[in-house]
Amino acid sequence: MPSRTPDASRRSETSRRAIYAAALSLVAESGYAKTTIEGIASRAGVGKQTIYRWWGSKADVLLEAFLDLGERQADELEAATGPGSTQNTPGSTQDTPGTAQPAPTTPALPDTGDLSADLKYVLRATVDNLQDPRFDAPARALTAEGLMDEKLGRAVVAKLLEPNFELYVERLRSAREAGQLRPEIDPRIALELFVAPVAQRWLQHTGELTHTYTDTLVDYALHGIAPH
Amino acid sequence: MPSRTPDASRRSETSRRAIYAAALSLVAESGYAKTTIEGIASRAGVGKQTIYRWWGSKADVLLEAFLDLGERQADELEAATGPGSTQNTPGSTQDTPGTAQPAPTTPALPDTGDLSADLKYVLRATVDNLQDPRFDAPARALTAEGLMDEKLGRAVVAKLLEPNFELYVERLRSAREAGQLRPEIDPRIALELFVAPVAQRWLQHTGELTHTYTDTLVDYALHGIAPH
Repeated sequence: MPSRTPDASRRSETSRRAIYAAALSLVAESGYAKTTIEGIASRAGVGKQTIYRWWGSKADVLLEAFLDLGERQADELEAATGPGSTQNTPGSTQDTPGTAQPAPTTPALPDTGDLSADLKYVLRATVDNLQDPRFDAPARALTAEGLMDEKLGRAVVAKLLEPNFELYVERLRSAREAGQLRPEIDPRIALELFVAPVAQRWLQHTGELTHTYTDTLVDYALHGIAPH
Repeated sequence: MPSRTPDASRRSETSRRAIYAAALSLVAESGYAKTTIEGIASRAGVGKQTIYRWWGSKADVLLEAFLDLGERQADELEAATGPGSTQNTPGSTQDTPGTAQPAPTTPALPDTGDLSADLKYVLRATVDNLQDPRFDAPARALTAEGLMDEKLGRAVVAKLLEPNFELYVERLRSAREAGQLRPEIDPRIALELFVAPVAQRWLQHTGELTHTYTDTLVDYALHGIAPH
């Protein structure tokens, strides 16, 4: 967003916030298909050219609005729990690009050295986020539409899911180096044992989403369901 | 479907098949939202009153068409692999209502006494089914629409997902009785460790869906990702 004066910059920021809020509320109320650039502009009180100047498509606006929501949620959590909780141990950066960032469904993935406790912590926070209506409605709409619209689906995965997955991959790699994961385990597959069940219960209402449930998933995934 | 003469019965059956085929092809081509009772009737070559006489809504037609597809796939598999593979052991019926039935995404869940082999077998077959375009398009459309439409979503879960889950629950209970599952494991949660990751990769294209992948999921779920 170009801006030449403090006033213009402030106006731009105000418009951007209004557009994000309008996009999220419209998609929550009417669904993705019925949300239009015109409708977003009208509710945000801006001209639709303002939106077209900054974003290429409806999907772009929505995804960015949603990512911004995630960043603000992460900031809130940071303010509530103090800084440093998103730090990863230096040892985990060996074979990762270090691109992990706060993402809407994974508020923070601590590395206290106790893998079980850290996974339980982040999954409990994820459950809380998923049940926040500000998050639920737009995330559900983007996900549903992404199942049918391959281009949007790829953007949802790349911008919303993969950054989350990367946080888990880094934490699991760090655990593997610390001897808390069997050496042959692929972190990218292992994370699915707890992330995918939570996603399915959230999206399809196939069962209760509680802290007890996510704790159980972590226990089962870490120790297996078969006798040792 | 009432029928009074062999001819009427044959006509009804022909219409029903044509309606199922039309519903599945239309939803695959145009999506759930754009599929109408009128469109289905027109493609099936029947009057729309014929459809309204037998089904209450578009969702009902589609779900039944899809369940019928699943039954026919199960019959095909049965014909290919021989009878008896869907039998469960008598011991597993103690606390289950015995309502498990072939369901579209779980072609057969054998009980050979080897839990790992049986789970790998059924998940490999599930991967094959999920990649069959006859299955993929309507299942994806129903799932996507069910995320936004709560009533349809509940019907999809009750008629498509839960019967599958019940097959896994029965097989895992039988395994628990045979000492192949830790006694404290809840089968209804345990099944999600391999079913939900497959569902997520299928729906959101978050990774390859291969036999090697589902074998790995079973190994991780059974033996855990932490060292013993």
